[in-house]
Amino acid sequence: MKIQSPPGMRDFYPDQMCVQNWLFDLWRSVSRSYGFQEYEGPIFEYLDLYRLKSGEGIVSEVFAFQDRGGREFAIRPEMTPTLARMVAARANALPRPIKWFSIPRMCRAEKPQRGRLREFFQWNADVLGSEDALADAEVIAVAVEFFRRAGLRDEEFVVRVNHRELAAEVLAAHGIDTERQQAAFQLIDRADRLGELEFARQWNESFAASLPADSLRALLADDDLERCCAHAQRAGQAGAAAAQALRQLWERLEQLGVRPACAFDLSIVRGLAYYTGTVFEAHMRQGGLRALAGGGRYDNLTGLLDGPRVPGVGFGMGDAPVLEALRQLGRLPQASEQLDVFVIDADANLFPRALTITQHLRRAGLAADYSYRRATIGKQLKEAAGRRARFALIIGEELDQRGELGLKDLETGAQRAVRLDTITSDPRAVIGVGGPMPGNTGVSPVA
Amino acid sequence: MKIQSPPGMRDFYPDQMCVQNWLFDLWRSVSRSYGFQEYEGPIFEYLDLYRLKSGEGIVSEVFAFQDRGGREFAIRPEMTPTLARMVAARANALPRPIKWFSIPRMCRAEKPQRGRLREFFQWNADVLGSEDALADAEVIAVAVEFFRRAGLRDEEFVVRVNHRELAAEVLAAHGIDTERQQAAFQLIDRADRLGELEFARQWNESFAASLPADSLRALLADDDLERCCAHAQRAGQAGAAAAQALRQLWERLEQLGVRPACAFDLSIVRGLAYYTGTVFEAHMRQGGLRALAGGGRYDNLTGLLDGPRVPGVGFGMGDAPVLEALRQLGRLPQASEQLDVFVIDADANLFPRALTITQHLRRAGLAADYSYRRATIGKQLKEAAGRRARFALIIGEELDQRGELGLKDLETGAQRAVRLDTITSDPRAVIGVGGPMPGNTGVSPVA
Repeated sequence: MKIQSPPGMRDFYPDQMCVQNWLFDLWRSVSRSYGFQEYEGPIFEYLDLYRLKSGEGIVSEVFAFQDRGGREFAIRPEMTPTLARMVAARANALPRPIKWFSIPRMCRAEKPQRGRLREFFQWNADVLGSEDALADAEVIAVAVEFFRRAGLRDEEFVVRVNHRELAAEVLAAHGIDTERQQAAFQLIDRADRLGELEFARQWNESFAASLPADSLRALLADDDLERCCAHAQRAGQAGAAAAQALRQLWERLEQLGVRPACAFDLSIVRGLAYYTGTVFEAHMRQGGLRALAGGGRYDNLTGLLDGPRVPGVGFGMGDAPVLEALRQLGRLPQASEQLDVFVIDADANLFPRALTITQHLRRAGLAADYSYRRATIGKQLKEAAGRRARFALIIGEELDQRGELGLKDLETGAQRAVRLDTITSDPRAVIGVGGPMPGNTGVSPVA
Repeated sequence: MKIQSPPGMRDFYPDQMCVQNWLFDLWRSVSRSYGFQEYEGPIFEYLDLYRLKSGEGIVSEVFAFQDRGGREFAIRPEMTPTLARMVAARANALPRPIKWFSIPRMCRAEKPQRGRLREFFQWNADVLGSEDALADAEVIAVAVEFFRRAGLRDEEFVVRVNHRELAAEVLAAHGIDTERQQAAFQLIDRADRLGELEFARQWNESFAASLPADSLRALLADDDLERCCAHAQRAGQAGAAAAQALRQLWERLEQLGVRPACAFDLSIVRGLAYYTGTVFEAHMRQGGLRALAGGGRYDNLTGLLDGPRVPGVGFGMGDAPVLEALRQLGRLPQASEQLDVFVIDADANLFPRALTITQHLRRAGLAADYSYRRATIGKQLKEAAGRRARFALIIGEELDQRGELGLKDLETGAQRAVRLDTITSDPRAVIGVGGPMPGNTGVSPVA
């Protein structure tokens, strides 16, 4: 019986896994540079956790199931509810600010069709326990830092930033009041996906009397932060506070050196109801409608879970759109697993000694392997090349004659003699390759 | 509404996550030393994939669900079916031997009770495409290497090794024929869990006439490899082949230097039907009935999936029993996330410059942070200690006077002046901390 990979799910063969690991390592490294600590949660949660945050509608968007005890669970479609649950459970014990990141895998019950993934990985970085604009600036800055270290230039990507209250004041000034505001935000959030005509049709259906789609478009296209802030400030107290918060954020982004990668954009509102302040999305400046990342400030999320109120700000960045953007630019690194050393015996009689020498290399932390089949040196060298080995270590009769082995550089083809005793005592120094070696040395690893 | 973590699932707060990452990094590092390449599969598969391998009974042991199209899926309870599916799909394109490892998370629908996990991580390492005893020896050796690098001595753990056919011949010699063999294996596999009396009761119920439980126990306790091999050899052709394979394996384990950590054990049979040759389990020598790892040779698995026959051998090692064993020995490393540098301003006016300097450190790959609240140097130093920072970099009036900052070693308390220009040009050299920095340099990362 032939069984396929489930629709919308990915298999990561070693070459693809290298690319994933490159991305995950970079996400981890950038997060740690910024003082974020890694956390993780379970792959599924009680379904109620998602109902609570997103309403009953979420049930059709997740993979839900029951255990034999009748408990309802769902594979996590996002990380924020888990984060809120974990923080709420220890809200009083955790020192502030809480700077956490995670690289969860998650699933959404998308209809299986080309290009729609049902499973993906998402980098999440959040700062909780601070209402300061610094916290908002830090999460935006860590995202910008990632794009830069991934090899993108500030002219190629942009983080579009807005403030929910600012947008709300602008809409309110045109007669779209608090009650209709969330519906308006959800529609604006979907504008790119709907396309110009369909968006205008749907918008005018609900809001034409207050603000026709054409006027809305002109309004949202204003990218002058000061003009919009002044506008909101005149509208009332909430508008003034939002303008003040956005100005402070702008100053901090400047001081953190990431301002050139950011743009004020009144059309960024995010669809989710729980955002309360700053909202932002990362996009490629050219082409591609999909956001690379999205996030914002949510100051009441832990309250939903009966925990004390803990203000927070954070974002999620999916693996698929980021890798796709880098691929389109031809900027994806050619990651591939490779061996440091392939050990070759010139004669099958020497093979047991080849095994012993291989073990010396491996114990020193080098990636070393050998052929399982006894064959000519030429065939073994071919296998070494197929395994993308950096060096071949050839064990021949010189071993017994002079205590020497041949070390062949498989990039240059150059070969030199090395002494067995130096190879067994300090192979990394002789061969000059190999990364750091983890182990249990009793020392705390540096974050 | 208060919502708990689902029963049997773990939350990993940052300190626990450090321990997990220590384990995952070590698994990865050891795997790569041995030339294994990492792969991954989807978190759920078609339920049929597990039915096919394990029979209808598996359905009650997994978390199964349907999508809106009525397709039946299950969260993966093990990795081997995914491995078999992925290898079968590309069987003719993959160069042999296929040496792959993975660190999947997986779920089993255990009854929620203390100490029973419904979700866990498991290191899987497999060699496919070779029937040579070398392949069996390699997977055992990589497991041994892990235990040693994790800080265990050969006297503390043991890999118990057997051969399915050898055990089958011994049972057959006592009248337990092929038909009843799998039932006998499953019962023997559960012997430790059942306890002596209950095992004897169940065994005698089915097999007393052929081989009473007491005699079986005496038989399985024989740990003399040569005597058992001779016994099996006399029993017939399959026994002779098994004895030969086991002797070859023993020789390779010796040459790979892992023989002292292994023991022949006729009572290790593994319950799963698909093992065809070598079977093994890793245990702590003292205390703890749970196996730390288990595996063996399966030469027909891809055939189940209509793929060409690809022989394989591999094992799975769970995170929970390994961490528990190390914890009991007090040998778990004190891993904790820490900062390299905490940047402190002596005066709030200097704070914007503190931000700029922090960004220099971060861009150089150092883990750097600062206080979100303007406070006295003393309070900021306290926050630095709370964040487990290695150094504090203090920005005071010496910056404008002499272009200098204070660098305080938070372990020794020693403080020295460092020049701003050296900190911004090469902070890692000045501060002398920080791990390697991944990024997109266009260079293939060394595996």
